[in-house]
Amino acid sequence: MPPIAASAGVADVLTDLFIVLLAAKLGDELFRRLRQPTLVGEILAGLLVGPAVFGLVEPGEVLEVFAELGVVFLLFWVGLETKLSDLRAVGSTAMSVGVLGVVIPFAGGIALGAALGESVATSLFIGAALTATSVGITSAVLLDLGVLERPTSRTILGAAIVDDILALLLVAVAAGVAAEGGVDIGAIAVTAAVAVAFVGFIALGGTRLLAARPALLHAPRFSESPLLPAVIICLGLAALSAQIGLAAIIGAFLAGMIVAETRDHSPIKAEIEPLYAFFPPFFFAFIGLEVSLAAFGDLDTLALLAAVTALAIATKFAGAYLGAMRMGRRDAMFVGVGMAPRGEVGIIVAGIGNATGTIDAERFAIIVARSVLTTLLVPPVLRRLA
Amino acid sequence: MPPIAASAGVADVLTDLFIVLLAAKLGDELFRRLRQPTLVGEILAGLLVGPAVFGLVEPGEVLEVFAELGVVFLLFWVGLETKLSDLRAVGSTAMSVGVLGVVIPFAGGIALGAALGESVATSLFIGAALTATSVGITSAVLLDLGVLERPTSRTILGAAIVDDILALLLVAVAAGVAAEGGVDIGAIAVTAAVAVAFVGFIALGGTRLLAARPALLHAPRFSESPLLPAVIICLGLAALSAQIGLAAIIGAFLAGMIVAETRDHSPIKAEIEPLYAFFPPFFFAFIGLEVSLAAFGDLDTLALLAAVTALAIATKFAGAYLGAMRMGRRDAMFVGVGMAPRGEVGIIVAGIGNATGTIDAERFAIIVARSVLTTLLVPPVLRRLA
Repeated sequence: MPPIAASAGVADVLTDLFIVLLAAKLGDELFRRLRQPTLVGEILAGLLVGPAVFGLVEPGEVLEVFAELGVVFLLFWVGLETKLSDLRAVGSTAMSVGVLGVVIPFAGGIALGAALGESVATSLFIGAALTATSVGITSAVLLDLGVLERPTSRTILGAAIVDDILALLLVAVAAGVAAEGGVDIGAIAVTAAVAVAFVGFIALGGTRLLAARPALLHAPRFSESPLLPAVIICLGLAALSAQIGLAAIIGAFLAGMIVAETRDHSPIKAEIEPLYAFFPPFFFAFIGLEVSLAAFGDLDTLALLAAVTALAIATKFAGAYLGAMRMGRRDAMFVGVGMAPRGEVGIIVAGIGNATGTIDAERFAIIVARSVLTTLLVPPVLRRLA
Repeated sequence: MPPIAASAGVADVLTDLFIVLLAAKLGDELFRRLRQPTLVGEILAGLLVGPAVFGLVEPGEVLEVFAELGVVFLLFWVGLETKLSDLRAVGSTAMSVGVLGVVIPFAGGIALGAALGESVATSLFIGAALTATSVGITSAVLLDLGVLERPTSRTILGAAIVDDILALLLVAVAAGVAAEGGVDIGAIAVTAAVAVAFVGFIALGGTRLLAARPALLHAPRFSESPLLPAVIICLGLAALSAQIGLAAIIGAFLAGMIVAETRDHSPIKAEIEPLYAFFPPFFFAFIGLEVSLAAFGDLDTLALLAAVTALAIATKFAGAYLGAMRMGRRDAMFVGVGMAPRGEVGIIVAGIGNATGTIDAERFAIIVARSVLTTLLVPPVLRRLA
């Protein structure tokens, strides 16, 4: 029986992929003609064809994987544009942006939880869900504007790595408190050590290896070009990154940075470009697909959503702005806005809270909607600041 | 709760995609160095990492969709190499290859069913499962050998379309007999008319439209190149084809043929190439992933498998050879061997029989294993004949 179900499934999945890609590119087309950020057009197209409006497409597992590959290839592409030395040059600023950009939203979330009369565990989860920046959205805007090589852009990318490692640890803390009412310091130290070791080892070892032996990507005979070896490295590091609890895009970004060290940098970019054109629209459209408007029937919920969104943006902006102050006000403002989008990481954190019974369905819907709102609000502002 | 399950799922799916792609390309590499057909290496790699041997990867929905997109982009690529006039030139031969290549295996399958003492409905299903050629495997070998422009290759492609339409009708007949003990001639006539109208309308109308207005693919501003418009056409026709019951690859092949009519043929090929490099390894590896050796513990089952495989190859070869006789013996032999692989279509047919209770689990396992065996046996022979 599986084959028949699977077969009917394949026809329907192909139809879903077609509808989502077509809708996303029509949204892109419309927003391009209106001179608006195209990724907002793609997100709204997903919202239109998804359950929130017309219900043509349900956000199932296959679309989620395509969305994930979309942001993986997006960050791989950004990595291809980035050198390790570029990140090093902004290292200490990126570190302070990352740390302050996590601490202040986390504190804000806990304060909000306390103000709402929530338990410690729930407050910790709300705080953790407010921390992680979704660098996919910002990256797409930076690419679109052609400003990826600016120090501010490098700072955002470096801070996003710091940010993701800290968010991972905060989630471990929150989940520990929710599960046992206590925190296993040893386990969290191990998590931290593994995450830092992974990033450090890949970033330093990987770039050195390929800088020293760029012919490695040409060694296999199965491919005339370095495309598939590069894609295999990207998938492997993305999967490894996801398996140790970091975002898959951290691995993909590092993979891009490693591959960028090889001498034949340009041909790889031309070859990756079709994958970069094909997958990311699914990432943007999927954000819209996930929106459910059912939870927002009453004014109280809408007011809470507005408050959470404002808090999410204000605290992240404040933390990142403070961290980037030494770059000057204008640049610090750019970094602050660039760090503001929250995407799938916040949703995943809230999902863990939901699964452990710490975050109820209404709060969960609010956190999802907050992610989408920050994602929609940031690109137009970032464009104006660039 | 969905996000956390889905999120853990995404990490695991990324890992599966990585393992399958890496294994397939290592299999490719090994077989390339041994001067053997590389797709056989990819299939055997799938068999090794799949449930049959090491069990690292289970063939789930996402991998099935990637496999399907693999054969979709493979046939899209083949379509890009094909002109409608090429198919017309071999039209009558392709028709007779397609018809005889369906009639003789169908009769052989019914005879086998009768010899095994099966019911009429079961015999009809065995016959139907023996009919449909899987042109994906043959296409890959023809591409690999660089002989796609030969009349024999065009004949195989044209015959595969005829073959798929006839197989669709035979499945409708078999399912009708199994369900009600009777055949709804009217419904089957409608199915036939829809399938023929789809292929005819797309092949004639689509190629004329894009031959007359090749700038259409450049009209959208969302893409500097015709890549995404072409991919959207490919996905759309593949989905439509699958929705009306034909193989998705028929639509993908027609889409390729349509896009090939535009003047900027070469840049599209260069752009599609990365997608064609990325997805098809999943198609080949998935064939190996689907293999289960559990059903083949006793000699009786193995003997029946050998008999069914021999019957499947002999009857298809005989039918296609007779249909292609006018091309001369050597070419007819090439066409006969090229039509012999049976893949996912036969498995889908057997799956429908299984779902209706007409084909039992053992028979189903035999038909799946037969598909894999024909797929493994054909490429080496075809290479020698080319």
